[in-house]
Amino acid sequence: MATIKDVAKRAGVSVGTVSKVLNGVYVRDANRLKVEEAISQLNYQVNTYARGMKAQFTNTVALILPDLVNPFFALLTNYVEQELFRKNYRMVLCLSSGSFEKEQGYFAAARQNKIDGIIGLTYSDEAEKYVSDDMPLVSIDRYYEAHIPCVTSDNYQGGVIAARHFYRTGCHQVAYFRTGAKTAGSTLERDRGFLETSRELGMECVHMDFGEEPGAQTADQIYQYLQEYQANTSRVVEGIFFSSDDLAVMTVEKLRREGIRIPEDVQIIGYDGLTVLNRGPLYVSSIRQPIQEMARCCVEQVMRVIHHEPAQMLTVLPVEFAEGGTTKPQISGG
Amino acid sequence: MATIKDVAKRAGVSVGTVSKVLNGVYVRDANRLKVEEAISQLNYQVNTYARGMKAQFTNTVALILPDLVNPFFALLTNYVEQELFRKNYRMVLCLSSGSFEKEQGYFAAARQNKIDGIIGLTYSDEAEKYVSDDMPLVSIDRYYEAHIPCVTSDNYQGGVIAARHFYRTGCHQVAYFRTGAKTAGSTLERDRGFLETSRELGMECVHMDFGEEPGAQTADQIYQYLQEYQANTSRVVEGIFFSSDDLAVMTVEKLRREGIRIPEDVQIIGYDGLTVLNRGPLYVSSIRQPIQEMARCCVEQVMRVIHHEPAQMLTVLPVEFAEGGTTKPQISGG
Repeated sequence: MATIKDVAKRAGVSVGTVSKVLNGVYVRDANRLKVEEAISQLNYQVNTYARGMKAQFTNTVALILPDLVNPFFALLTNYVEQELFRKNYRMVLCLSSGSFEKEQGYFAAARQNKIDGIIGLTYSDEAEKYVSDDMPLVSIDRYYEAHIPCVTSDNYQGGVIAARHFYRTGCHQVAYFRTGAKTAGSTLERDRGFLETSRELGMECVHMDFGEEPGAQTADQIYQYLQEYQANTSRVVEGIFFSSDDLAVMTVEKLRREGIRIPEDVQIIGYDGLTVLNRGPLYVSSIRQPIQEMARCCVEQVMRVIHHEPAQMLTVLPVEFAEGGTTKPQISGG
Repeated sequence: MATIKDVAKRAGVSVGTVSKVLNGVYVRDANRLKVEEAISQLNYQVNTYARGMKAQFTNTVALILPDLVNPFFALLTNYVEQELFRKNYRMVLCLSSGSFEKEQGYFAAARQNKIDGIIGLTYSDEAEKYVSDDMPLVSIDRYYEAHIPCVTSDNYQGGVIAARHFYRTGCHQVAYFRTGAKTAGSTLERDRGFLETSRELGMECVHMDFGEEPGAQTADQIYQYLQEYQANTSRVVEGIFFSSDDLAVMTVEKLRREGIRIPEDVQIIGYDGLTVLNRGPLYVSSIRQPIQEMARCCVEQVMRVIHHEPAQMLTVLPVEFAEGGTTKPQISGG
């Protein structure tokens, strides 16, 4: 593994100059470029952070998310910015659409102390290889092999709550339909919580993955899949749990267009607890994530990481059932 | 007015040191603090920008918006970030909730070359006094007395389109209900376009302002206002134009709960063209703003300002009518 001396030798500058570049101290552009090139060529891991070297704090944290089209991400960004401002921090926003190339620039900036830390929700597989124990990173929903603090909500319990609701409203046959990345994320726990609980409670459960991103055809595909499943098994699906509100809402529209009554014919539970224009009623019955509290915890943990205080490696926040008109009232305990 | 020499004298350092601080070049912390204190005490306007002094570009632009709870702002942020990234720029996000105190920090950072420029949608009255010709700022929807490039959509035409739609569907009595700040913004043109066109077309038009921010009671207040207006005048309001989709959606819910049929009894047109979860159907018939194109133009203009190229002082983008199920089809020209 390359050392700071190797970098200095390759760049043809002194170790002191390399050190200055690493610490964000001003050096002539020509020298800075040589040093950066050498760092890149030698794949030198610029770890000023873990070694506790004097760093110039920038009071800037980067938030990495896929996009802001999903209202869940927009609300999370809204609250993270507010929390960071309270701590006198600015927020740089990186919308990666899952592109590691874009994320990588921010990871590099954090290593080089150009930003103090990162709060990141990243799906790319490459991130797994790149992220190391000393990265000033707090992860949302994703467990890394490296020792990185993670903030998430209780996705397993979300699945349990949905299965129990269907059971307590008299369902015998349920379904779980998902879209989304299969990256080592805690959101996969939704699947496990729902499937395991359905089995334990003696409900028949069919489940299907409809790809990474719900598209214009996804609701049609779900409808067709349901029709075929019911025709082939002579069973009637009485409750469907979805991995997101988005998917639930588009399926509800499709089912209603096909004359299926909700919740009389089939109950629907989504995930996230999103509301009309972010302040009206719920779109569908849902498992509500505590978005504001997640933001608060992310900022708290990243502050600890930045200031070399012990961070909580896993923060799991409670979720709750939110009645949004697509489910029946519970009739029994269970 | 204080000069750079006054600052140097007050700080007890050389003019060269002040210049270094202004240009972001490294100086000892103790000296930097002295200079910053002197700048603050003398209210020295650090205008390295307009004088074209060598600046260290940070490749960072700040986007100032009230919040991301409003999906219009979330989508705008989404597209601005993408456009900036294409230009190799990072985006710092400032959600001001209209607080000038918070905005001011970013204005100051821009003056001091800590960020290269600002794209801002700001409602605070204080901003008017603070913003000057040489501020590297592109304004969204708001005209400043200072010579600041502004990007907006054709709000006047939006009002015209809504009034014409009501006229062409046979309305004789219409209403305009608004919420929002009354700051010198181009969004006030919506009012003017609608009211003037209604008058020209011979429609009776009632209009009312329901405060700065729609709240839990706003839809009830609108309903009550309508009832009283209709009782007092013995007239029936056949079409209502709203200053935002938000306000339109909450009023539609209230009216439907009261047994009023939409669009049979009353037609509704909102503003913005927002869709369910940002990719489903429209919530209501609406005047659609070209959000992505607005983002592109904001970034294009801020790049010109940053690079001392001539910027377009006013960019007005076209809007269009979007049929969302709360209006009747047009029956005649007009």
